[in-house]
Amino acid sequence: MADMPALLFQVLKPWRNAKAWHVALSGGLDSTVLLHLLVQLRQTHSIPPITAVHVHHGLQAEADAWPAHCQALCDGLGVPLQVIRVQVQAGASVERAARDARYQAFAALTAAAEVLLVGQHRDDQAETLLFRLLRGAGVSGLAAMPRQRRLGAGHLCRPLLDVSRAQLEAYAREQGLSWIEDPSNTQTDFSRNFLRHEVFPGLLRRWPQAAASMARSAAHCAEAQGLLDELARQDLHAAGSAGEFAWLGLPSLELATLASLSPARQRNALRHWLATFTSLPDTDHWAGWEALRDARDDARPVWKLAEGELHRAAGRIWWLSGDWLRQPVAPVPWGQPEQALVLPGNGRVRFVGDIPDGALQVSYRQGGEVMTLPSRGHRDLKRLLNESGVPLFARGRLPLVYRNGQLLAVANLQGLDSSPCGRWQLQWLPTSSDQGLS
Amino acid sequence: MADMPALLFQVLKPWRNAKAWHVALSGGLDSTVLLHLLVQLRQTHSIPPITAVHVHHGLQAEADAWPAHCQALCDGLGVPLQVIRVQVQAGASVERAARDARYQAFAALTAAAEVLLVGQHRDDQAETLLFRLLRGAGVSGLAAMPRQRRLGAGHLCRPLLDVSRAQLEAYAREQGLSWIEDPSNTQTDFSRNFLRHEVFPGLLRRWPQAAASMARSAAHCAEAQGLLDELARQDLHAAGSAGEFAWLGLPSLELATLASLSPARQRNALRHWLATFTSLPDTDHWAGWEALRDARDDARPVWKLAEGELHRAAGRIWWLSGDWLRQPVAPVPWGQPEQALVLPGNGRVRFVGDIPDGALQVSYRQGGEVMTLPSRGHRDLKRLLNESGVPLFARGRLPLVYRNGQLLAVANLQGLDSSPCGRWQLQWLPTSSDQGLS
Repeated sequence: MADMPALLFQVLKPWRNAKAWHVALSGGLDSTVLLHLLVQLRQTHSIPPITAVHVHHGLQAEADAWPAHCQALCDGLGVPLQVIRVQVQAGASVERAARDARYQAFAALTAAAEVLLVGQHRDDQAETLLFRLLRGAGVSGLAAMPRQRRLGAGHLCRPLLDVSRAQLEAYAREQGLSWIEDPSNTQTDFSRNFLRHEVFPGLLRRWPQAAASMARSAAHCAEAQGLLDELARQDLHAAGSAGEFAWLGLPSLELATLASLSPARQRNALRHWLATFTSLPDTDHWAGWEALRDARDDARPVWKLAEGELHRAAGRIWWLSGDWLRQPVAPVPWGQPEQALVLPGNGRVRFVGDIPDGALQVSYRQGGEVMTLPSRGHRDLKRLLNESGVPLFARGRLPLVYRNGQLLAVANLQGLDSSPCGRWQLQWLPTSSDQGLS
Repeated sequence: MADMPALLFQVLKPWRNAKAWHVALSGGLDSTVLLHLLVQLRQTHSIPPITAVHVHHGLQAEADAWPAHCQALCDGLGVPLQVIRVQVQAGASVERAARDARYQAFAALTAAAEVLLVGQHRDDQAETLLFRLLRGAGVSGLAAMPRQRRLGAGHLCRPLLDVSRAQLEAYAREQGLSWIEDPSNTQTDFSRNFLRHEVFPGLLRRWPQAAASMARSAAHCAEAQGLLDELARQDLHAAGSAGEFAWLGLPSLELATLASLSPARQRNALRHWLATFTSLPDTDHWAGWEALRDARDDARPVWKLAEGELHRAAGRIWWLSGDWLRQPVAPVPWGQPEQALVLPGNGRVRFVGDIPDGALQVSYRQGGEVMTLPSRGHRDLKRLLNESGVPLFARGRLPLVYRNGQLLAVANLQGLDSSPCGRWQLQWLPTSSDQGLS
């Protein structure tokens, strides 16, 4: 017990050059002990400046007294305190909403090179693991709470994750600390508290090391998830070479490379890739992926997900979201063709080289368009697009430049995007590639 | 409920061409329902012949009546029954010993292309997962019971792993089945029963889907473990090219290739590799690996494991076990050098080409040996071995052939293993390569 500050120093060593350590202080046992330990530590070690943050949820009358309690604690320890009041959205789970509001506040105040320290301990970790298990989580969920992660512009760190609640309580009693017992902690109708008060005591009677073992399992899962991520990155790299239509600026992968992997490995790679774009479907709904992958060549399969759609075209899968799922508005007159034209919801077009004469406007395909090509005469646009192989999902938003009702050019498609003698060329920078190029 | 035979048929489809389906019949609810379902199934579908197997542990007086119960059940259903009596080793865990004895018996009776069907259901799976969690298991442990695996010369299959205990009981009551309630099932001093009676009821009160969720987590872990195994095989393949001393016939890996991976990935690969040779150390004891990996070039690091040792030499790690860890007995007279000579605990030696004259014997290095080389005169054997770079662990068991007290040849080392004019060559086939070459 005596060496708890020393143990804490070991864990926090990687963060000792941070600009500030903020302690998330609820006033409960865990955060009170954490703050006290840090104040001990600063007497013997050179560590970053410490501040405390108390988030006031305003959910229960008792809690109104907590900011004052925290203030008294911090005054006694010589630590500046910031109290943040948040609004908790009423909804299905008050616990979850309070947690979300709290972490939003923490993220906002954690600047670059700063660290937010939170007091969660080994018993919390075991509870989290069990909780995830009761939702049927996979390895990443069973990894429970990470020891550290990005938060706002800085990081979050849980330095007490190897310390038991009993150890914290013993320390607090030894040091004569007082702390707030959150009444919601004893209400067993909150799921977590149900685990804490109804399930764990039974487990601990028979297996005193239960929490330690479960925290070890969580650590194994965290390590395993790191490897699964490595494997995913490797597989995505292999499937990630730029294809013919890279100018669409959309995230895409080669289907054949992906499909050559085992189904579990496909899911692992896709899960990793999709996680940056959307929340992920349950295991049961991955049939959508198989349908997309195995559809006939002439089918137009789509896998709809929470924040977008996965399409298949030109031997690749494509992630479409936002503007890409809405038909852009047209026609758009191009008054000053010497300047790039912003297309509402569809990026920009510009001419490279000379500028064509006459009154120009941009429109999109409706069907039935005909284009006159120098050496080939009149041609159906539909057939020309088929020849180009451009993905179906992009055809309705390919900028078509008209002059006096005549289709002059189709952006970005070789042979259709320039004047016969090559004096000018029509370039389209779609929405998704816009940011990168502007 | 009505479609339980149909559901079972779906699950068992991959095994429908097996030569036989053996049902592990304890006489309890699960196996009684499984047997009954299979008998139903055989009335409408073409399935392999069904037999039942009851293992009698002789651990409790009540159990003496069970073989007769099972016989009556099987007679009624028209299924042949085999009763096997096993001895359970007294020890720390009676449960475990009984389980081991039971599975040994099952393995012995399951022939090639045959399947043993066991009645474990979804609640058992959830219990197994929780049980593993209480031991701090990693992903492979949290995968709980596999749906199928090799057993003896055939396979084991758990066709009811998606069915709840409640569903089985409802079926049994509907069909008017009677079954044995194992009295040990109600003794909560057995760990598993403690979970069943003390922990699960509380969880299920709050989360009726707890068992289903936990079984889903187990399935996620099984899938993840499959991917970790794929990653391990890939990494082992990269580190597995044959090196200079492949003739030692020992499992070995290139150290540099392995060490270039992340530490977690090193452990994943090594765990996979070592699992075929030995039981594995706890997480805490993997420091032995780091010591082996990071030792100075002139050190002679060894990582001792349960069934052998990992050595480092010649840029590789080597797995040594059995005879390789015992000093072989010498000298061994070589009465008929025209035939290969078996070296006790050290493989065999033989001459290729002609046979040297005179009385020969094989001995091993003691220190201080000198060898006369045609162009170089007298040389210390120690220096010659250093020049060869042969791993240190092999030097004490390199066969040395003597004639009249004079060192004639050192097996397998170029320049030392043959006559000056190349008329003969001394070849050693070490223990570990023996099986492959004989």
